[in-house]
Amino acid sequence: MILSDPPAIFYLTGKWIYPGERLLALLLRMDGGHKLVINRLFPQEKDLGVELVWYEDTEDGVEILSRFVEKDQPVGIDKTWPARFLLRLQELGAGSRFVNGSLIVDSVRMIKDDREQQLMREASLANDAVMEKLIPLVNQGYSEEELGQRVRALYKESGHSDVSFPPITAYGKSGADPHHMTDCTKGKRGDSVVLDIGGILNGYCSDMTRTVFLGEVSDKAREVYEVVREAQRRGIEAARPGARMCDVDVACRDYITEKGYGEYFTHRTGHSIGMEDHEYGDVSSVNKDEIQVGQCFSIEPGIYLLEEGLGVRIEDLVLITEEGCEVLNHYTKDLIVVPMED
Amino acid sequence: MILSDPPAIFYLTGKWIYPGERLLALLLRMDGGHKLVINRLFPQEKDLGVELVWYEDTEDGVEILSRFVEKDQPVGIDKTWPARFLLRLQELGAGSRFVNGSLIVDSVRMIKDDREQQLMREASLANDAVMEKLIPLVNQGYSEEELGQRVRALYKESGHSDVSFPPITAYGKSGADPHHMTDCTKGKRGDSVVLDIGGILNGYCSDMTRTVFLGEVSDKAREVYEVVREAQRRGIEAARPGARMCDVDVACRDYITEKGYGEYFTHRTGHSIGMEDHEYGDVSSVNKDEIQVGQCFSIEPGIYLLEEGLGVRIEDLVLITEEGCEVLNHYTKDLIVVPMED
Repeated sequence: MILSDPPAIFYLTGKWIYPGERLLALLLRMDGGHKLVINRLFPQEKDLGVELVWYEDTEDGVEILSRFVEKDQPVGIDKTWPARFLLRLQELGAGSRFVNGSLIVDSVRMIKDDREQQLMREASLANDAVMEKLIPLVNQGYSEEELGQRVRALYKESGHSDVSFPPITAYGKSGADPHHMTDCTKGKRGDSVVLDIGGILNGYCSDMTRTVFLGEVSDKAREVYEVVREAQRRGIEAARPGARMCDVDVACRDYITEKGYGEYFTHRTGHSIGMEDHEYGDVSSVNKDEIQVGQCFSIEPGIYLLEEGLGVRIEDLVLITEEGCEVLNHYTKDLIVVPMED
Repeated sequence: MILSDPPAIFYLTGKWIYPGERLLALLLRMDGGHKLVINRLFPQEKDLGVELVWYEDTEDGVEILSRFVEKDQPVGIDKTWPARFLLRLQELGAGSRFVNGSLIVDSVRMIKDDREQQLMREASLANDAVMEKLIPLVNQGYSEEELGQRVRALYKESGHSDVSFPPITAYGKSGADPHHMTDCTKGKRGDSVVLDIGGILNGYCSDMTRTVFLGEVSDKAREVYEVVREAQRRGIEAARPGARMCDVDVACRDYITEKGYGEYFTHRTGHSIGMEDHEYGDVSSVNKDEIQVGQCFSIEPGIYLLEEGLGVRIEDLVLITEEGCEVLNHYTKDLIVVPMED
């Protein structure tokens, strides 16, 4: 099996290596003769517990890798491996068959051990604190872009190495498009403000969403907010060992559909999270996997009314326990109207 | 042919779409029936000049894509396409053979038209201005991390949408490791300081490196600096239409080798640049391609003496003209010693 994803390689070797566009390949062999094929530009001082095979910029790294691949055996391939490497390996005739092998590592990473659980708790507590500092800024006249910069600064100030994804700070119509790109829009009275933010603390990611309102909230917006909030509560209730991942999605989606907004909940309910913001294990209607103790994922239903410029999403992370789940975010989900001067 | 890289899709459709982990595939068909397979999460208001094929999170996007791929024809694949998609397409039996097809688009993108040349000029002029503001900050006691934050702020303040890569602000030993990761190191008297920075202005990238010294410069450091400077000058001289990309590398490398530092110049001489910081077309000993008018690439030789904690790199961007090349960076390459109080 060939692993190339930096987090997977970190998980197995204890070392983060970011090769950029260059080949980095951890070959796991059945006979235990594992190799890490690595460019000379990334000298390693520590023993990584695996034999290093060096190549230079002027050499064909994949050809060097292929010398260690059994010609007549199937090869597991990392899901993220770029086609330029995979096609070259296939061209070289290394391996009899190529299959996506990421599940082997990803399904181990999906279950957080005690230390990881504690790190996930701490990261989400720190995220709650950032959210608390962010909300009073939404009526200060910042554009989405400027507010996003403030979010990045808040993470830096509170000991995070980085954001875990580009912050979403979306006013009104922007928030009604779940994949709007942050721009120079400023908030106006009555806007919903979708704040979807997360940081990386001690190597583990947080991710939460709150939706607040600027100055005032219409009856329709209040109704939509409460539908999303109740849907999210139902999702949390459904998240327990023995249930299936899709049951969490269904719990949120059925309620939103029942209230007449089904077609406006246009994405899956959530995603697994850990060292990466998005890890293996969707919370979606097609994931029939049984939920296991130690999993950590987001529950984030939303309703997006593009024509009315109204978007609402509420997201917490949950950690699956023997009894059900522990909600890692504690910041209130009560409807907040941030006052606005005229 | 299947394109998936956002810059390539932007180049052909005029629209930036960032699908994250989700499938986005522009299928170019010989019969002109091109399709863009796109997730419903990314609604498009503008006509992109191509038929859109929508899929939902719960659907198998690659299966939907495969319906439009000729079973008995070879398929060009984008070099960056993740293995999870390519392996699925292969499993579905779409296409008779799979080849890296990126060269088709990349070789067109490599030649900048007049408008792009002007944007590259402007981006590098703005980069010179950032460098000018940055150098007086290196003696202010900032850590590498803090200095990097200042660089990001300088780009924002001067109208850039972002940095074109994480800035390198490396003191002493850090700069002697060409792929050191920015940390909390602070500068000390006698340090070389490698400043490798770039921003994105109006969609086009800049990228330049200067190496300055803190407080004082040893004779050895001065010698190494002048070797790199002369090597870089020779590289620029070699960059002209009709020569080969490898000739530029050889011009730099031979001089450094002649001066006894060949083994300490551990990377290729440069890379092409445009909408992305690293584009197709290496300046390396293995790239025998003939240089063409309109190409834009970096010339950035370096010498890295890890044991002595001394690293020197000098980098400019050049634009190939009928006569030779235009150097896009104008900031001085004279040796700068930034004064330091004790």
